[in-house]
Amino acid sequence: DDSWTVAGRTFNSRLIVGTGKYKDYAQNAAAAEASGAEIVTVAVRRVNLTDKSQPLLTDYVKPDRFTYLPNTAGCFTADDALRTLRLAREAGGWTLVKLEVLADQKTLFPDVIETIRATEVLVKEGFDVMVYTSDDPVVARRLEDAGAAAIMPLGAPIGSGLGIQNRVNIRLIVEQCKVPVLVDAGVGTASDAAIAMELGCDGVLMNTAIAEAKDPVRMARAMKAAVEAGRDAYLAGRMPVRRYADPSSPLAGLI
Amino acid sequence: DDSWTVAGRTFNSRLIVGTGKYKDYAQNAAAAEASGAEIVTVAVRRVNLTDKSQPLLTDYVKPDRFTYLPNTAGCFTADDALRTLRLAREAGGWTLVKLEVLADQKTLFPDVIETIRATEVLVKEGFDVMVYTSDDPVVARRLEDAGAAAIMPLGAPIGSGLGIQNRVNIRLIVEQCKVPVLVDAGVGTASDAAIAMELGCDGVLMNTAIAEAKDPVRMARAMKAAVEAGRDAYLAGRMPVRRYADPSSPLAGLI
Amino acid sequence: DDSWTVAGRTFNSRLIVGTGKYKDYAQNAAAAEASGAEIVTVAVRRVNLTDKSQPLLTDYVKPDRFTYLPNTAGCFTADDALRTLRLAREAGGWTLVKLEVLADQKTLFPDVIETIRATEVLVKEGFDVMVYTSDDPVVARRLEDAGAAAIMPLGAPIGSGLGIQNRVNIRLIVEQCKVPVLVDAGVGTASDAAIAMELGCDGVLMNTAIAEAKDPVRMARAMKAAVEAGRDAYLAGRMPVRRYADPSSPLAGLI
Amino acid sequence: DDSWTVAGRTFNSRLIVGTGKYKDYAQNAAAAEASGAEIVTVAVRRVNLTDKSQPLLTDYVKPDRFTYLPNTAGCFTADDALRTLRLAREAGGWTLVKLEVLADQKTLFPDVIETIRATEVLVKEGFDVMVYTSDDPVVARRLEDAGAAAIMPLGAPIGSGLGIQNRVNIRLIVEQCKVPVLVDAGVGTASDAAIAMELGCDGVLMNTAIAEAKDPVRMARAMKAAVEAGRDAYLAGRMPVRRYADPSSPLAGLI
Repeated sequence: DDSWTVAGRTFNSRLIVGTGKYKDYAQNAAAAEASGAEIVTVAVRRVNLTDKSQPLLTDYVKPDRFTYLPNTAGCFTADDALRTLRLAREAGGWTLVKLEVLADQKTLFPDVIETIRATEVLVKEGFDVMVYTSDDPVVARRLEDAGAAAIMPLGAPIGSGLGIQNRVNIRLIVEQCKVPVLVDAGVGTASDAAIAMELGCDGVLMNTAIAEAKDPVRMARAMKAAVEAGRDAYLAGRMPVRRYADPSSPLAGLI
Repeated sequence: DDSWTVAGRTFNSRLIVGTGKYKDYAQNAAAAEASGAEIVTVAVRRVNLTDKSQPLLTDYVKPDRFTYLPNTAGCFTADDALRTLRLAREAGGWTLVKLEVLADQKTLFPDVIETIRATEVLVKEGFDVMVYTSDDPVVARRLEDAGAAAIMPLGAPIGSGLGIQNRVNIRLIVEQCKVPVLVDAGVGTASDAAIAMELGCDGVLMNTAIAEAKDPVRMARAMKAAVEAGRDAYLAGRMPVRRYADPSSPLAGLI
Repeated sequence: DDSWTVAGRTFNSRLIVGTGKYKDYAQNAAAAEASGAEIVTVAVRRVNLTDKSQPLLTDYVKPDRFTYLPNTAGCFTADDALRTLRLAREAGGWTLVKLEVLADQKTLFPDVIETIRATEVLVKEGFDVMVYTSDDPVVARRLEDAGAAAIMPLGAPIGSGLGIQNRVNIRLIVEQCKVPVLVDAGVGTASDAAIAMELGCDGVLMNTAIAEAKDPVRMARAMKAAVEAGRDAYLAGRMPVRRYADPSSPLAGLI
Repeated sequence: DDSWTVAGRTFNSRLIVGTGKYKDYAQNAAAAEASGAEIVTVAVRRVNLTDKSQPLLTDYVKPDRFTYLPNTAGCFTADDALRTLRLAREAGGWTLVKLEVLADQKTLFPDVIETIRATEVLVKEGFDVMVYTSDDPVVARRLEDAGAAAIMPLGAPIGSGLGIQNRVNIRLIVEQCKVPVLVDAGVGTASDAAIAMELGCDGVLMNTAIAEAKDPVRMARAMKAAVEAGRDAYLAGRMPVRRYADPSSPLAGLI
């Protein structure tokens, strides 16, 4: 057993996947299934959740199979994000949410000032807030102090696929946080996800790395294995690095 | 189905594990089992395969479950390696072997000149030779020309756990080789193994990374998943890297 | 001519050095001289600038030779930093200052919220504020909007010597800023300083890398050359990276 | 004084530059001058050294100012290289030479087997042989045993500009060698050259990084400074890396 718990809910999978950029909802559902994810994050301003004349995400990625984690992708102010999540709560009853308040359309970096402010408001309103943020450990602490349910530092710019740029900061956040830490954004391939977990993160969230792979379903399976591999490697306690080679075996007792 | 074939033998697992440095043969067997490996490599000059008054490796790591791949760990000349493998063939009938001719006890780097010479002789004598070598693509080509059954470049010094030092060279070897390429030596943790596979290698061989983890059995499981993750990520075709962020989703159609 | 200008003052040297951690003021002065720096930064809460019964920094590192840049090392709140710089202005007439508001004693990371607040106040009070901050481009933009005279992102934790951890972020800050950008903290050796400059930064500030080298004066000289090298390489426009080798020369016309 | 000596000749500059890929000999000469190099390497099969109806390299890059180091660029067998250097000795009296025996036109990697063979012959014939080779420490030792005057491992493929791929191997070569070690090939920008020197190399040879910069003369100047910076940093003894930040100053004694 190696489950993790956020806001009182316990999950076995440590991989959270997105619901954007896929060819269609069927491909999205197949990838989500292959990923083993128990949580999918949904840009509630973008995904069709209500218009029954159009394909509905919920007909493919089933809410009884996946925990829906509404997010505020596309929100560039705290107020915009607050409005979006309040509407989401009214519409779907969701209280476990992912907050992202973006600073600009080019880099999609979080605006940490607005993010802290929105977190404070949402916590007061009873939301359980998982928060997308920079990899600044001091901001992470402020968010935790404000009541964030989970800290979700970026590994690299959203959609960049560059992998984790600053392992030192991610590790410092892991060491200091009492709530779960999940790398959110920047993963490009399987080893990136493994590295996040080897740093001691509780999980990884990704969208583009799966959705824009040539074969998204196979990549989803790769990411499932990568997260498990990184987690097990972290728990197993890796060998120390040695600068100089040493024998792979005692050289005594030869034939 | 994603099997690979060396010297006419087909395997599903792409992870080869060692049989040195474990606390005892029981732990070794448990780790080998957890790794999902179908091949174990055995330093025939070191491991007890014949003295029934002592624990026998074969009583733990069963030859009917694992393909034994005898290796020449501890051999510092071509002649020494040749003698060792001829004895191994006589004793156990093994013809699929792993050749390593080491240059010195400190770094355990291969002596590529002696290695090429030994490969030529062994091929003439009917062995199927998987060869530990440097990451020099030109030497790799010479070994393949000499009839090597597989090329096994080091990722980093044996037992160092440093991870793959030169991805360019490993990738060049993968691109040029017609026989399987397996990274041998240098893996320290799960992401290192994933990276090897993401470069297009056919497999990975490791010993210390598992045997010297705090929990070798769990690390073996991690490595199994890491190799599968890296392989699937390679086949899935990763997203392109972008220098600047782009939206994780089209921003039209907002609430 | 390749000078740079901050708050109306023009400098030729792009290296700013510190005045802490040296064996004594004489060694500090020798290192500052060897570094070619025109600006030295001074922790006004720590360095002796007034007690004539003790050695005075100003007797060694001469104010007529170096521009003194008072800093707020050791200040953990905006108020503390404000108080320190107001005292400094009263005592020495300094208006070009370096603001650092630290979050904790362990990591010495900046508290960006307090830093923004203090910047706003100081700018209103007529200071020219060079600001130590994280490598978050959004925070950098806020600081510039608040009137900062220069943005000084950390490359890695103060005193770590780890080198620049996140080149993507540093480059994004350089691209977006109209005021000078100087990497502050994290440089460990000469190549780290060169890399900062190759990213297009206007300068580098360092203390520990020089003061804690075995031979601080020689390291100061190394850093002078490294900053010049990185700057020239940036201006010269480096060759493109090629994944595969190509001839270093046309191969026609051979003997 | 920090000179180095190869084959009994002493030099102050640790940067060797090439004479290929420039717009013309005049630009080449200006870059060589700016680089501060005392040695230029010349592909004797390619450069015009004798036909007075055409521009002569020697009219621009003056042999009384630079030591000419003939090289065997374009030679793909030991015999070809031997023939080339014998002709060079006859024509110009050169005995200090740079041997490169390339394996193929695509990667321009050295063929280490042929290189060792050619080194042995050249040493017997009285040449002082500086040898381009892989970064394999065992091959480097063989070359030194064969009488090489200097070991010149590649940092990355010729003309790639990728920077040093395997610092571990370069450092191992430096530690073991009694003759000078110079990184040859792979440098792309100033920090790459600084890193080579920080590893303890005696020098660096480069061509493309200067010749294919947008402004070769300025890049030559950058490389001069980078090599000096890296050398001084190596001699100065860098600060130790710290995983966690520590104060840049004692925090006692505040205002």
